Amino acid sequence: MPDIERVLTEIEDNQDRAIGKLLKLISIPSVSNEPSGREGILRTAEWLVRELGAIGLSARVVPTEGHPVVLARSPGGSGASRPRLLFYGHYDVQPVGDPASWTHPPFAPKLIPQDGMTRFYGRGASDSKSQLWTFIEALRAWNAVEGEFPGEIVVMLEGEEESGSPSLAAFVAAHKDELACDAAFICDAEMWTAGQPAITTQLKGLLHERVTISAPNPDLHSGHFGAVAANPIRILSGILAGLHDEQGRVAIDGFYDDVKALPAHVRALWRDLVRETDPADAIDLSGGMTEAGYSPIEAMWGRPTVDINGITGGNQGPNERSVLPGTATARISFRLVAGQSPDKVRNTFRKHVGARVPPGCTVEFTGTGGSTAVTLSQDSPFLKATARGLTAEWGTPTVLKGTGGAIPAVQQIDELLGVACILVGFILPGDAIHAPDENYDTERLRRGARSWVRIFAELGRLQ
Amino acid sequence: MPDIERVLTEIEDNQDRAIGKLLKLISIPSVSNEPSGREGILRTAEWLVRELGAIGLSARVVPTEGHPVVLARSPGGSGASRPRLLFYGHYDVQPVGDPASWTHPPFAPKLIPQDGMTRFYGRGASDSKSQLWTFIEALRAWNAVEGEFPGEIVVMLEGEEESGSPSLAAFVAAHKDELACDAAFICDAEMWTAGQPAITTQLKGLLHERVTISAPNPDLHSGHFGAVAANPIRILSGILAGLHDEQGRVAIDGFYDDVKALPAHVRALWRDLVRETDPADAIDLSGGMTEAGYSPIEAMWGRPTVDINGITGGNQGPNERSVLPGTATARISFRLVAGQSPDKVRNTFRKHVGARVPPGCTVEFTGTGGSTAVTLSQDSPFLKATARGLTAEWGTPTVLKGTGGAIPAVQQIDELLGVACILVGFILPGDAIHAPDENYDTERLRRGARSWVRIFAELGRLQ
Repeated sequence: MPDIERVLTEIEDNQDRAIGKLLKLISIPSVSNEPSGREGILRTAEWLVRELGAIGLSARVVPTEGHPVVLARSPGGSGASRPRLLFYGHYDVQPVGDPASWTHPPFAPKLIPQDGMTRFYGRGASDSKSQLWTFIEALRAWNAVEGEFPGEIVVMLEGEEESGSPSLAAFVAAHKDELACDAAFICDAEMWTAGQPAITTQLKGLLHERVTISAPNPDLHSGHFGAVAANPIRILSGILAGLHDEQGRVAIDGFYDDVKALPAHVRALWRDLVRETDPADAIDLSGGMTEAGYSPIEAMWGRPTVDINGITGGNQGPNERSVLPGTATARISFRLVAGQSPDKVRNTFRKHVGARVPPGCTVEFTGTGGSTAVTLSQDSPFLKATARGLTAEWGTPTVLKGTGGAIPAVQQIDELLGVACILVGFILPGDAIHAPDENYDTERLRRGARSWVRIFAELGRLQ
Repeated sequence: MPDIERVLTEIEDNQDRAIGKLLKLISIPSVSNEPSGREGILRTAEWLVRELGAIGLSARVVPTEGHPVVLARSPGGSGASRPRLLFYGHYDVQPVGDPASWTHPPFAPKLIPQDGMTRFYGRGASDSKSQLWTFIEALRAWNAVEGEFPGEIVVMLEGEEESGSPSLAAFVAAHKDELACDAAFICDAEMWTAGQPAITTQLKGLLHERVTISAPNPDLHSGHFGAVAANPIRILSGILAGLHDEQGRVAIDGFYDDVKALPAHVRALWRDLVRETDPADAIDLSGGMTEAGYSPIEAMWGRPTVDINGITGGNQGPNERSVLPGTATARISFRLVAGQSPDKVRNTFRKHVGARVPPGCTVEFTGTGGSTAVTLSQDSPFLKATARGLTAEWGTPTVLKGTGGAIPAVQQIDELLGVACILVGFILPGDAIHAPDENYDTERLRRGARSWVRIFAELGRLQ
C-alpha cells in the first residue's frame, strides 16, 4: 500500500521548489495564436521535456503540422494490474492583448501577498500552466516517495489549445497506441468555488466566424457621401444588434432547431447549485442578457449562445477622421450544445447575415473551428474514484458541473481513444483567464498537487 | 490692360515645370493628424516658402500653437484702386490609412497615362496640394508676363485643415491687419462635373464625438461569461443601429429641432441640377440610406447627418480569440445645417446614448471640433466676377453649389475678417480624397491655373 501521508508531506516540503519552477514556466511566453509566439512555444516545449525527464519520465518533443506536443511516459515494466493513466494539459497561452491594460507584467511573475494569500500574475498563470504543474508535481512526489509512478503514466502537453487545437486530432490518431489508457485526465477546468472541487462533465461546442461587410465603394469622405452612400459599420451594427431578441434569445432563424433540451435532472442539479453559491460571484452581470427562462448557470453551461468577440472598421488612428469606410469586420463565435452541428449552425448564420446585407454591398465569411458539444459519462468508476479523491482533499462534496468553454482535446480523446475522459482543474472565475492580469495563488497549486495524490490513491484501490 | 492671352500662353508653355513642382510638393508627406507627421509638415512649409519667394512674393513660416501657417505677400506699392485678394489653401493632408489598400505609393507620385488623361496618385494629390498650386501657378504666370501681381496679394496656406483647423481662428485674429482684403478665395472645393465649374456657397458644420462603452468587468472569457455578462460591442452596435430610422432620418430626439428648412429656391435650383447631371456618378449609392423626401443632392448639401467613422472593440489580432471585451469604441461625426448649434447637438447626442447604456455599464465621450454651418452671399460682385471668369474658361455656366464638407477656415475668415468668401476649386468625386489612391490629372491643373487668370482679369474690371 502506498504511504499517502508521506507523499503529501513530500509535496509540503517542496513547495518553494515547485513554485519556483512554475514561475519559470510562466515567464517563458508561449502564445500559440500569433506568428511571433513560435520561438517561445519551442523553448517552453524543450523546457518541459527537461523537467519531465528530471522527475523520471521519458519525455520528448513531438512535431505536428502546427506547434509540437510534449509527450512523456513512465519507464517500462507494465503490470497488468496497474491503471494506465493519460494526463492532458496545454502549455500554450492566450495572447496578451493590450499590454497597457496589465497592472503586472504578463511574463515576469513574482509572489505577491494579497488578501491573505500569495498570488502570482502572468499570462498562463491559471490557464493552464498552474493546472499542468499540479499533476507534474504530484507525479514527482509520488515517484520520489514510492519509487514508482502510480500507474502506467502518459503525459501529453499540447501547444495549440488556445488556437483551437488544429493539429490534435491527427496527433491522437497517429499515436493511438502510445496514448492507450484506462482513463484520460484533462486538467484544464474550474473548481466550483474556492473551497469546493468539481469535475466538469458537460462542454459546449465552438465555432468562429469572421464577417466582413463591404460597401460598393472604397473609403469615401464622410462629409461628401455619408448622407447617401452605404456605411458598412452601420450595416454591420444592425446585424449584430439583431443577433439577440429582447428575451436574450438568439434571433437567427433555425438556430435552436436541433437543440436538445436540458434533462430535468441536470436542471434540478444545477438549480440546487445556484441556491448554494454562484461561480459568477466575481463577475458583475449587470448589463448582460441572460436568456429568459434560464438561470445564469443554465445559460452558461446548457444553452447555445452567440458572442461578438471583436469589431473593426474605419478610423483606427489617434485622431478623428471624416472617413466613410469601405469595409467593417466582426468576429463572432457560437457556443453549441448537444444536438447542434457546427456546420449547420455556420450555414444558418451565413444565410441570416446574407439576407441582411443590402443590395450592392457584399459580405465575406471566414470560418474557423467547429466542434460539437460533449457530454461525459458520470457513471465511470474512474470518475467516481476521482470525485472521492477530490472530496477527501477538500473536505466537501465534489460538484459535477458543466462549462461554457470548449476543449477540443476532450472531444478528440473521447472520440478517438474511446476512453473515459475526466475533467479536473482548479481554475476560479477571479483568475482573469484570457484577460489582463491573469493570476493564480500558491495555495491552489499546493492543494491541486495534493488532490492528484488523493486521486492516485483512489484509482489504485480500483484494481 | 493686362494681356490675358499672353498670361495664358505663359501657363501653357510652362506646364511641365508646374507639374514637376507639384509632384515634388506631393512627395513631401504632410500628415497633420498624426504626431509622426510633424517633420514632414515643417519641411513642406519651408519648401513652400522657397517656392513662393521664387515667384516674387515675400513669404515666411509663421508658427502657431499647432502646425505653422505659410504666409506670403506681394511687394509694397499698394494702389488704392487695386483689389486686395486673399488666397487660402492648406498644405497638410489626411493620413494614409492602411498602406496596403493603396495601389500607388501615397508619397511617390508619377505621371500615368490613363483614360485619355495623365493622372498622378498620392495623398494630397487632389486635397489640396493641386488646388493651392493652381493659384500659385496663375500668380507666377501673371507676374512673369505683366511685371506685377493682379492686385495686392496675400497667400495663406494652413497646415492643420485636416485636423479641424484648431489654431486658425487665433492666427486670423492675431494677423487681422495683414490679412485685410476685399475678397478671400478659399481654394479647397469641388467642380460641378469634369467639364463644368462651380462656386460653393453653402457648407455644413461639423463635430466629432468618440463614444466608449465599458462593461462592469474587464475582458472576460466569452465561453464562460458570454451568455450572461454585458458585451460592450453588442450594446454599442444597438446604439449605432438605432441612430437612423427606416426612413434614413436621424433618430435622436430633438436632433432636427433647430434645423432651418431649405429655402424653396435653393431646393428648386438643386433639383434642376440633379436633372442635368449627378456629382455622385462616380459613387455607387446602393446600400446607402438617403433621408426620405430628399434627393441625394439635398441630403448631401442641405440636410444634417450623423456618420459612423470608426469602430473598435475586442479582438484585433490575426487569429480568433474567445474574448468578451471590456470596452468598445465608436467614432461618430455630425454634419450640421443652418440653425443647428454644435454644442446643443453634442448634448442631445450624449443624452440619447446615455439613456441607452444599461445599468452597470458606463459610457465616456470625447468631443472634438464644433463648427456651425455657413451660408455665403451669392450677391457679392467678387463672387459674380469669379463666376464670369470660370465661365469664360470652361465655356459653360458656373454652378452655385453646396457641400457636405466643412471648412473651418471659411467660417473663421467669414466671421473674423467680415469679408466676402468665395470657394473655388477643381476637386471631383473620382479623386478619392481622404481615401486610398487619391489622384488628380494634369488637365485640371492646367485649366485650374487658367481659370484663376480669367478670374484675375474679371476682378480687375471691377475697379
